[in-house]
Amino acid sequence: MVNETQQSCSASSSSRSDGGSSSGSESSKDNSRCSTPVLDADRHERLREKMRRRQEAGDKWFSLEFFPPRTANGAVNLISRFDRMGAGGPLFIDVTWHPAGDPGSDKETSSMIIANTAVNYCGLETILHMTCCNQTKDDITGHLQKAKRLGLKNIMALRGDPAGEEWEEEVDGFNHAVDLVKHIRSEFDDYFDICVAGYPKGHPEAESYEADLRHLKEKVFAGADFIITQLFFRPETFLKFVKDCQAIGITCPIIPGIFPIQGYHSLRQLVKLSKLEVPQEIKDVIEPIKDNDAAIRNYGVELAVSMCRELLDSGTVHGLHFYTLNREVATTEVLKRLGLWKEDPRRPLPWAVSAHPKRRVEDVRPIFWASRPKSYIYRTQEWDDFPNGRWGNSSSPAFGELKDYYLFYLKSKSPREELLKMWGEELTGEESVFEVFTCYITGEPNRNGHRVTCMPWNDDPLATETNLLKDQLEKVNRRGILTINSQPNINGKPSTDPIVGWGPSGGYVFQKAYLEFFASSEIVTALLKVLKKYELRVNYHIVNVKGQNITNAPDLQPNAVTWGIFPGREIIQPTVVDPVSFLYWKDEAFALWIEQWAKLYEEESPSRMIIQYIHDNYYLVNLVDNDFPLENCLWQVVDDTFELLN
Amino acid sequence: MVNETQQSCSASSSSRSDGGSSSGSESSKDNSRCSTPVLDADRHERLREKMRRRQEAGDKWFSLEFFPPRTANGAVNLISRFDRMGAGGPLFIDVTWHPAGDPGSDKETSSMIIANTAVNYCGLETILHMTCCNQTKDDITGHLQKAKRLGLKNIMALRGDPAGEEWEEEVDGFNHAVDLVKHIRSEFDDYFDICVAGYPKGHPEAESYEADLRHLKEKVFAGADFIITQLFFRPETFLKFVKDCQAIGITCPIIPGIFPIQGYHSLRQLVKLSKLEVPQEIKDVIEPIKDNDAAIRNYGVELAVSMCRELLDSGTVHGLHFYTLNREVATTEVLKRLGLWKEDPRRPLPWAVSAHPKRRVEDVRPIFWASRPKSYIYRTQEWDDFPNGRWGNSSSPAFGELKDYYLFYLKSKSPREELLKMWGEELTGEESVFEVFTCYITGEPNRNGHRVTCMPWNDDPLATETNLLKDQLEKVNRRGILTINSQPNINGKPSTDPIVGWGPSGGYVFQKAYLEFFASSEIVTALLKVLKKYELRVNYHIVNVKGQNITNAPDLQPNAVTWGIFPGREIIQPTVVDPVSFLYWKDEAFALWIEQWAKLYEEESPSRMIIQYIHDNYYLVNLVDNDFPLENCLWQVVDDTFELLN
Repeated sequence: MVNETQQSCSASSSSRSDGGSSSGSESSKDNSRCSTPVLDADRHERLREKMRRRQEAGDKWFSLEFFPPRTANGAVNLISRFDRMGAGGPLFIDVTWHPAGDPGSDKETSSMIIANTAVNYCGLETILHMTCCNQTKDDITGHLQKAKRLGLKNIMALRGDPAGEEWEEEVDGFNHAVDLVKHIRSEFDDYFDICVAGYPKGHPEAESYEADLRHLKEKVFAGADFIITQLFFRPETFLKFVKDCQAIGITCPIIPGIFPIQGYHSLRQLVKLSKLEVPQEIKDVIEPIKDNDAAIRNYGVELAVSMCRELLDSGTVHGLHFYTLNREVATTEVLKRLGLWKEDPRRPLPWAVSAHPKRRVEDVRPIFWASRPKSYIYRTQEWDDFPNGRWGNSSSPAFGELKDYYLFYLKSKSPREELLKMWGEELTGEESVFEVFTCYITGEPNRNGHRVTCMPWNDDPLATETNLLKDQLEKVNRRGILTINSQPNINGKPSTDPIVGWGPSGGYVFQKAYLEFFASSEIVTALLKVLKKYELRVNYHIVNVKGQNITNAPDLQPNAVTWGIFPGREIIQPTVVDPVSFLYWKDEAFALWIEQWAKLYEEESPSRMIIQYIHDNYYLVNLVDNDFPLENCLWQVVDDTFELLN
Repeated sequence: MVNETQQSCSASSSSRSDGGSSSGSESSKDNSRCSTPVLDADRHERLREKMRRRQEAGDKWFSLEFFPPRTANGAVNLISRFDRMGAGGPLFIDVTWHPAGDPGSDKETSSMIIANTAVNYCGLETILHMTCCNQTKDDITGHLQKAKRLGLKNIMALRGDPAGEEWEEEVDGFNHAVDLVKHIRSEFDDYFDICVAGYPKGHPEAESYEADLRHLKEKVFAGADFIITQLFFRPETFLKFVKDCQAIGITCPIIPGIFPIQGYHSLRQLVKLSKLEVPQEIKDVIEPIKDNDAAIRNYGVELAVSMCRELLDSGTVHGLHFYTLNREVATTEVLKRLGLWKEDPRRPLPWAVSAHPKRRVEDVRPIFWASRPKSYIYRTQEWDDFPNGRWGNSSSPAFGELKDYYLFYLKSKSPREELLKMWGEELTGEESVFEVFTCYITGEPNRNGHRVTCMPWNDDPLATETNLLKDQLEKVNRRGILTINSQPNINGKPSTDPIVGWGPSGGYVFQKAYLEFFASSEIVTALLKVLKKYELRVNYHIVNVKGQNITNAPDLQPNAVTWGIFPGREIIQPTVVDPVSFLYWKDEAFALWIEQWAKLYEEESPSRMIIQYIHDNYYLVNLVDNDFPLENCLWQVVDDTFELLN
């Protein structure tokens, strides 16, 4: 249902590209109505549509290729890299298929799981590579079904390398990529966008360049949507290839694969694998500096930039595909110099959007998970339903249990030793915990000279927006109001504001002031007295680990705390303080004390017992100041509380 | 589904009357989530719950009794009276059952249709009387089914008067009100709230006062929810009656029926019908002044006020039921003097809310029908579904045809002769139409000395809010921008603002500036040129009677133009400019030229042809200024348009 509605909406949007469309009333009456405001048309398009729209708009783009990591730690690092490089605005990323690495399994290093994480947890449009040789039809169908179930929408269909030295055709098996393309189309209809590989110099095993072109045409005519090419060293190689493709009737997009040379050894290895020859003029430069990594990389960047410029200037190329070799520096540098790296401070929504098709209508989340979006996505991954952008008519929103704190995409980026340096090798009392919170806020080193750059509730340094509240936060954390989430009130800033803006331009964004913290029962008792004075202005929820819950929220209704008003749209309210989900968040927030902090220490050690004591006795509090046009009163509430305690 | 959710919400609301509730997390996890913000708890309660809540809060209330009119014109007048007296805040009204007037029929004067109109079009909680004698079981079940279908939720179960002089029991028939109460409970379970009549002096036909009390107890034990009494003349009569009821175990609410004496003859007639005796002390006052209507009414008001005060002061009485005899003055006066008339400038929503149970979750409407809410309700009466407060997943929102412009509740209050005086006995050209629009805006008399107090698109004088725009509106109407709907921009006024406020207190309301008008194609051509300059700021829809439609609305999405932010709530956006429903409104807006205006004149008369020309050639335009925090730019747009035309 939602799918149909959305499709009809995006269909109608294409008819108004001239800024004003004219139609008879009859046809307009047939148009359906979107049930959810479409903030970002992009979010609702399939990859081939995005490509077409960008090409029509003359808007150049890039994409990034990664291979799956070997180790679990490598996976954690790769996911952070996705987040960082995702910020530059790639149209998509792709993840290669490593037959030797159990690529379709649930292992955190498998191609399937890395692609799953990119789509669902990093919100990246993703192509999963898949090879077909040496696999049964059933294996392949199983992989494709799993990919679909996980929300993957794009497949790069490849043959793969032969098992032995020599290539032997299998009867009834998949011998060529074209077999895989046909299989996908026959089993999955139009669900997947399919990409195939093109070889600007011809495939090394092909009888001839011309024969290889004919193979490529077969793949396209079997249902491929676009082509990404093998790397090449000279722009004219690619441009000739495109011309030759067009000459035999290939009309789909052909995207050049760009390989910025990053080191002598990696180049040699790649050349060996791909059976390409490095042109003499490049060898001449590289050989003399082969031991100087920095020099080679600089040269590689120069070379790539100049080749990319030539390609883009040719008018034939609308997007560039980068072979990153899982490294950031060279590719980012090339993209920045080309002006393609677009770190837009504006967010489509105030939180990290997932690229799973079923979540494309999601437009509201509880604020509690603001610093743990991946955990929120994980705990709601089983929800099928986001009608009007939120969980549906379920009488009880079923949050998944969060037992496995070691899911690699939820894991802290910092190893145990580093966490101990930040949070204290040895705690001497609750006060030393207050100090850790305070150092995280101020950015000052702790008493042992280490900066606290993450907390169990937030794996990243303080958000720019939270920085606006830094002084007040420092003050209250010193005294045991241990803040884990907060936002200032905003009364109508432009949606393009670099710090608090989000959504399409031309709009206005608003926030109610929010403060969430742990505090002792002594503080909470005083706070409750103070809150009586603010009964009509401040909504509160106060809960301990046992679930004892004190609130003045009317009728268990959610309170909108972030919203935006945009031209020609319904109102979006992407974050709410929701009394029901707060109790699920409470379980997670309290558990993080133990799972991420207490367990750093020996059992029954004094440090561990201090954290355990806080876990058992403190309350988790959230406060909302409903009077967003006035000065935030939450600091006054906290001051009054401390005064009462004195 | 919606019902269940809502019930669970209101159930949970009762547990927080102390402003803070405490519960374990397990029970909270079971709580369901409201899919729609509950703005006004009242809207979701049944009548007996409202009574209980008001009694618990010590909040005195009143209700009003009306009888169905004899003529169609009487029906139009009664409906206006409902609207005016509804403004004073009655807890409910009730409509008597006139067996002689075909009470269950679809005639505009039937009890059923008057009650239907009160509920659905005036938004009043309504009790429909129903008598049972001389009717078959099937007739009665049919009436009850119809009442349920129309959204009526409360029945006053009565016996009714015998057909002949003497009362004869019917075997297997309904002989007493208690039979009707039992029948309703057995056939409709708990759907209806049931009221029964109590006789403070005993029913005139009862064997004795005591026997009558026993009959009353039977009716209550058969399932009645509360009692309204026959009129009486002395407070002690009522207070004794209540005590006697309680003594035999009647515990439900007993509401005194108050009859403010309004004239000598009406009093005599009522006394005759009800077989009551007027106390001597009242006769002594009335007889000498029996020809002085004003004096009798003044005395009646005095008497009623003093009796009501005594009743309220007794502590036994929480609500007063008024026999209005379909008149306004005396009852309104009594209520105002008692301080019970509560004309709250704040509206629950910016538009007239319907009291039909299925519409209780409705919280958004297209702005086009702002001045014709009854028409909107009529045209959407078949919608079953208001999920999240709006029309649902229907691919095409099915608006009913508006062919019958003579439905009494949609009819102009003014007769033809008055309309001709206002809108011109004879039109001389388009300019004379411009003049009518201008006079409606300014409130100045037209060239023949008549004030224009209504227009085909708006049966009432200019709204207070629109008055804010009066000067600009006058200027543009003079020049042929014929405005039919507009609102100023509002950037966060308190929800208690007497002019633009709505919803619960403590909130903030917002609006985007809106302007809707008819204009010639010459003006529209210039306007479209001007609008290019405002492309990013102003959304427009321009359509003619044939449905030629020009718009820059993105993706056919609705544009929120009124919204409110409230403590502890999700955001409410009660009015939108919706591109789809605009085309349905267009049909109605153009048809009103012909149906209400052109048809005042002879066929082929010049006046009629002028209106017909406008109908055939003008465009209907709506403009929204999305930049609500800035000064409204729509006047500049119009000025620029006129400048271009010069």
